[in-house]
Amino acid sequence: MVQFLAMKFLEKLLNSSRTNNSLLCVGLDPDPRLMPLADLFAFNKAIIDATADLVCAYKPNVAFYEAFGSSGWEALERTIAYVPTNIPVIADAKRNDIGNTALAYARAVFDKLGADAVTVNPYLGGDAVRPFLDYEEKGVFVLCRTSNPGAADLQSLLVADEREGKQQRRLFEIVAGLAKQWNESGNVGLVMGATYSADLTAIRQICPDMPFLIPGVGAQAGDLASAVRLGTDANGELGIINSSRQVLYASRGPDFAKAARGAALRLRDEINRLRVMKGSF
Amino acid sequence: MVQFLAMKFLEKLLNSSRTNNSLLCVGLDPDPRLMPLADLFAFNKAIIDATADLVCAYKPNVAFYEAFGSSGWEALERTIAYVPTNIPVIADAKRNDIGNTALAYARAVFDKLGADAVTVNPYLGGDAVRPFLDYEEKGVFVLCRTSNPGAADLQSLLVADEREGKQQRRLFEIVAGLAKQWNESGNVGLVMGATYSADLTAIRQICPDMPFLIPGVGAQAGDLASAVRLGTDANGELGIINSSRQVLYASRGPDFAKAARGAALRLRDEINRLRVMKGSF
Repeated sequence: MVQFLAMKFLEKLLNSSRTNNSLLCVGLDPDPRLMPLADLFAFNKAIIDATADLVCAYKPNVAFYEAFGSSGWEALERTIAYVPTNIPVIADAKRNDIGNTALAYARAVFDKLGADAVTVNPYLGGDAVRPFLDYEEKGVFVLCRTSNPGAADLQSLLVADEREGKQQRRLFEIVAGLAKQWNESGNVGLVMGATYSADLTAIRQICPDMPFLIPGVGAQAGDLASAVRLGTDANGELGIINSSRQVLYASRGPDFAKAARGAALRLRDEINRLRVMKGSF
Repeated sequence: MVQFLAMKFLEKLLNSSRTNNSLLCVGLDPDPRLMPLADLFAFNKAIIDATADLVCAYKPNVAFYEAFGSSGWEALERTIAYVPTNIPVIADAKRNDIGNTALAYARAVFDKLGADAVTVNPYLGGDAVRPFLDYEEKGVFVLCRTSNPGAADLQSLLVADEREGKQQRRLFEIVAGLAKQWNESGNVGLVMGATYSADLTAIRQICPDMPFLIPGVGAQAGDLASAVRLGTDANGELGIINSSRQVLYASRGPDFAKAARGAALRLRDEINRLRVMKGSF
């Protein structure tokens, strides 16, 4: 147990990914309209028990817990504590604030929740991300290109990049460049939606060695093949392919945990088949 | 009591602002290193009791509660419930996520916490802000120009605005334009840091009738005179001038509540003096 606690996030991720031969991340997003159990923690526990040998990480989205108020926050604390020590937990919180307030958020996710990594929003700039980065053993995934239709409103705007001879670049490409600058401790990753697979290529070129957290396959209908082929690094690793609803709600009956395992297994194996194809390109 | 519950946010804000003759918002940001009491709720209760007739709003920053884990979240629930019904509460949460997840956040702040307004981050675009906007009786403050040094990393980037004959505009000006589009129900406001007072002018021109939440006076040394003169509307209203540390920690001894009242009173009156000066321009 001590060995996993002392690992840096990237080591821990590669370790779980290789041990479980998996790029699959299961999003622990309890939705009261879909859950077969009323108790958040009991539901998560059953899902974790059924899938812990099939995933490289778990990603609870904090919103689904906050929607239950303080009792939801407590269920989140218990859920993260329950995840086996060798599997990293990414708190999908999309947090952002200035200086000392960002530090309070970093304490909340890393010290209180005990997450191994967090997602953050870059709109407030480098000094607002710094308090998260200063936890050098933790991972910090910067929102770059999100998987929703409205992402283009800001992220696709053309920006005059003064540093690059006034070449125009899209805002999310600027964010990828900033994330690279912020990566002094090797603990930065990017959130890259699978629904914009063409953009994965551009961003992999800017950040060839960073872990990419890739939501949007499954329920959001992102292209899994592109996500694996373009989102992983040169070794077919460091792409964290997230699925939430497709796994959690594979069945809404009493067999939900077994069905979740089946869905996770199929998805892991399909991803691995695509990784092999990438290797043979 | 029913009359305040039925009010839309903007009415409720104008009502409290006029009743208390105040543009002052007190930021309820309990910092364990500075608080004279260990109990979050007891501290907030004392501050609220001492200042409720001097403010137009309260603004708890959610980060400071999350840093205490689920018990902090519970203290936040109790704090918001304790604020007198005629004073609006702005949950400074800077939330952002896609579709159904943003809806979970909206439920958390509006239904569970019972806040009257929330701050949101625009990086994910219009469809990600929509679930908040759909609470038409609630206020939604979009981060536009923040008060930290790193704000320039993204917010000041020059963007080619295709809709305006390719005129270049800074990203935060684009955000202000989007916020104006999103304001179909009259429930949108902007967060405009006081430390960039020159930019207040540009944004007031784009959004003359929106409430501006203006943090950064006091501990962050923003220019109060500019914030009042440039941040308020033509009537010298709709500028919500936030102060946290200057009020909360005016004294760290047993007289902290009395000292907080003194600091709030001085700040309210100074703001009103500056409003009168604006009127006589």
